[in-house]
Amino acid sequence: MAMTITHTSPAYLGRHVLAEFWGCHRVDDPEHVKQALIGAAEAAGATVLQVNLHHFGEGMGVTGVVMLAESHMSIHSWPEISFAAIDVFVCGKADPHLAISSLKQSFEPTDIKITEHFRGERHHA
Amino acid sequence: MAMTITHTSPAYLGRHVLAEFWGCHRVDDPEHVKQALIGAAEAAGATVLQVNLHHFGEGMGVTGVVMLAESHMSIHSWPEISFAAIDVFVCGKADPHLAISSLKQSFEPTDIKITEHFRGERHHA
Repeated sequence: MAMTITHTSPAYLGRHVLAEFWGCHRVDDPEHVKQALIGAAEAAGATVLQVNLHHFGEGMGVTGVVMLAESHMSIHSWPEISFAAIDVFVCGKADPHLAISSLKQSFEPTDIKITEHFRGERHHA
Repeated sequence: MAMTITHTSPAYLGRHVLAEFWGCHRVDDPEHVKQALIGAAEAAGATVLQVNLHHFGEGMGVTGVVMLAESHMSIHSWPEISFAAIDVFVCGKADPHLAISSLKQSFEPTDIKITEHFRGERHHA
């Protein structure tokens, strides 16, 4: 991912947001999850390379992973408790918080917990 | 992912480890990255559903994502600075630290930073 370095802050290579969505809607619907992920990537200003989904069965969870030119996004859902664990890792100019905002519109959670982690902090180099 | 709940601690649904590997070897080799990810999933006691790779070009980075029955693992590499950003998210009895140990053997980093995050902590339910 050589070309992304020049686009980021000198302090780190990328930002990784972990989001807990409680009280979600439609997290058991693989097609909705897929469209939500694609929409979130677009909202973040990221480029989708691949979208891969796995549905654990009728009424059960969905795993969705999007490989981005800027890293990845994933969702793992537990519809039986209306929960989804999301992560958005992006380099360069892409904004992970815009992806999270888009996903909030898609799944309408009632409660959210978000943490942000800087990846590849340069003082370790 | 309904069936995983009964296998985890009552306090959370899964463990998500973020690992920064500095001074890595062979992170520009997609086949090595693929085999490393599969080996790490096995070491963790996780079940591989899909392995997806993207190589950004000769001598450039590799993105690898493994969808697991227990969630996912990913790697994004910057071989020009011998760096890889790894995450391992697993539910149930799978142990993310065993995956990290396996990946250390595969990439031989000289410096590592690891953080662990509990996903789906129940007091939010």
